[in-house]
Amino acid sequence: MTSSPNPVLVETWRGDAIESFHRGAVAVVDADGALLASLGDIDRPVFPRSAVKALQALPLVTSGAADAFGLPDEALAMACASHGGEPAHTQRVAATLAAAGLDETALECGAHWPSHDATMRAMVREGASISALHNNCSGKHAGFLCLGCMLDEGKDRRDFLRGYIDPAHPAMQVVTAALQATTGFDPANAPHGIDGCSIPTFGIPLRRLALAFARFGSGVGLSPEHAVAARRLRQAVARAPFYVAGSDRFDTRVMERLGERVFCKAGAEGVYCASFPDRGLGIALKVDDGGNARASAVAMAALIEGGVALNDDEARFMRGLSDAKLSNWNGITVGRVEAAQALRGLALG
Amino acid sequence: MTSSPNPVLVETWRGDAIESFHRGAVAVVDADGALLASLGDIDRPVFPRSAVKALQALPLVTSGAADAFGLPDEALAMACASHGGEPAHTQRVAATLAAAGLDETALECGAHWPSHDATMRAMVREGASISALHNNCSGKHAGFLCLGCMLDEGKDRRDFLRGYIDPAHPAMQVVTAALQATTGFDPANAPHGIDGCSIPTFGIPLRRLALAFARFGSGVGLSPEHAVAARRLRQAVARAPFYVAGSDRFDTRVMERLGERVFCKAGAEGVYCASFPDRGLGIALKVDDGGNARASAVAMAALIEGGVALNDDEARFMRGLSDAKLSNWNGITVGRVEAAQALRGLALG
Repeated sequence: MTSSPNPVLVETWRGDAIESFHRGAVAVVDADGALLASLGDIDRPVFPRSAVKALQALPLVTSGAADAFGLPDEALAMACASHGGEPAHTQRVAATLAAAGLDETALECGAHWPSHDATMRAMVREGASISALHNNCSGKHAGFLCLGCMLDEGKDRRDFLRGYIDPAHPAMQVVTAALQATTGFDPANAPHGIDGCSIPTFGIPLRRLALAFARFGSGVGLSPEHAVAARRLRQAVARAPFYVAGSDRFDTRVMERLGERVFCKAGAEGVYCASFPDRGLGIALKVDDGGNARASAVAMAALIEGGVALNDDEARFMRGLSDAKLSNWNGITVGRVEAAQALRGLALG
Repeated sequence: MTSSPNPVLVETWRGDAIESFHRGAVAVVDADGALLASLGDIDRPVFPRSAVKALQALPLVTSGAADAFGLPDEALAMACASHGGEPAHTQRVAATLAAAGLDETALECGAHWPSHDATMRAMVREGASISALHNNCSGKHAGFLCLGCMLDEGKDRRDFLRGYIDPAHPAMQVVTAALQATTGFDPANAPHGIDGCSIPTFGIPLRRLALAFARFGSGVGLSPEHAVAARRLRQAVARAPFYVAGSDRFDTRVMERLGERVFCKAGAEGVYCASFPDRGLGIALKVDDGGNARASAVAMAALIEGGVALNDDEARFMRGLSDAKLSNWNGITVGRVEAAQALRGLALG
């Protein structure tokens, strides 16, 4: 907390005044590591949380697991997903596990109610109970389990897989190695934490996260295997964007609209990462205060507006996300959440 | 956004690193208006939202409505409440309305699902639908309607009450006058907004909000009628703290434990106000980023620890709220949310 404060990225207005505001940092990097634009402290390590699921999914492809188990685009998108627990999501994860001869009891992510309201209500009405399939990370965990199956050298499969969330498990070691190869972070000297779904998470500077996503979007700077896998994951998400988030969710809506021109992925605590492949750019941002997803999504929307070639309709669509109305319980518009000037003025390369 | 950044009030830790942090401002004032301690910009107008419901409830008592309709402590506590929509809450609001010859159709706050999860699930299971009674502000609105009944000079009661949420309605004018009398803010020059429940909200500096709560807790500086009403409201909440928030909620838990030694009330967007009557102090704080209630509650807990005489058990209880564990979906402790050094070091008068 000794460095100078980060700039304001997002403001919320009520009536004629700013009610709240969110500070944070942004890094825009190309695949050669050149810093093209930035705001705030991009060298402080941040836990990227779910924003790097796509990087953690690379070994699912490079190990041969995706082919061995015949995983379709939807399954690959779910390996990169923070999903809402809608029926199509949980069914898809169950199918991935079944393809590997497993079921939901192999998942070690813990259970929580679907974040998709209508699904949660339908389950409550029917007296249904939740399982690890409903955890927003279950697709990622199913991917880890498929990867683990490829690493098992003849032991009992379930025995080998048990504890796959541990940093020392062979599957998690391969996942961490992919994160290291793409970001160049140093696990020995990075802050260590445990994620919401119990896997390890490491503190990585935004500058390095942005570099990894520039690489992820272009293939430049990746090993040939990672480059092929990155392209396959990006295409899978672009073809099946519902599976990376869900109904009415930012990442799904944006990628449904813009296809392969943007890969973007939210993480908890205000982190967002993105690739703009046409421009060769990688983006990483974190809102300091974290807990409020409204701010990080609005910031990412403004960066997409500034960094991706859009036609008029697309630009209007994105502006609706970077300058969003706030309504109250009577449906009256009472304010808005919008990207601050510092962010709008950022020249992206 | 031109003033210097506010200090960090609350930090969240994950593993061995700070993951997110919340800046904000705090004012601690006595009833003479002396500023005893502060952090950050306490002169920027902030929308106090639900944190000033107790001030807005003063006319319910001074108008004679509380006596005319025989309102018990529970009803007065609910006039100051942001409640969870539990059955006892909605039943109590319905009873208050019935005492004035009204029902829920008179409420103009809009409807939302109860924030109390178990209540919401029970309603979904039973196929129940929501009404304005479930709005967290319905107790306050029932109070406004009771007040309005005292102001009606012979018109049809329902006709007169219709539109009571409008700034120009006689009932809302009396409510705004109470806010003006206690805080000394100037409605003509304050920022104007519409609250979540559709009543007007005004931007008021934390310094003035703290003064109002020093007055609310001590009676000093209030009109004799407001002083009597303030004492009655504080005692009502201390006797019926469940009705000011609900099960497992911060304000209810703290006032159940500390009784009349603390009156505290959360508002949306990171605002908290409190009176420490034994010390003659009023407190007002706002977390800049607003949307995350975790930060404002932790900050208020630290201020209560520093400003209220507590025995060892009470101090341990409060420390559990100002330095709170974060657990993940597997129940593993992954971090904590805690008051930052600047807040801990604040000498409260």
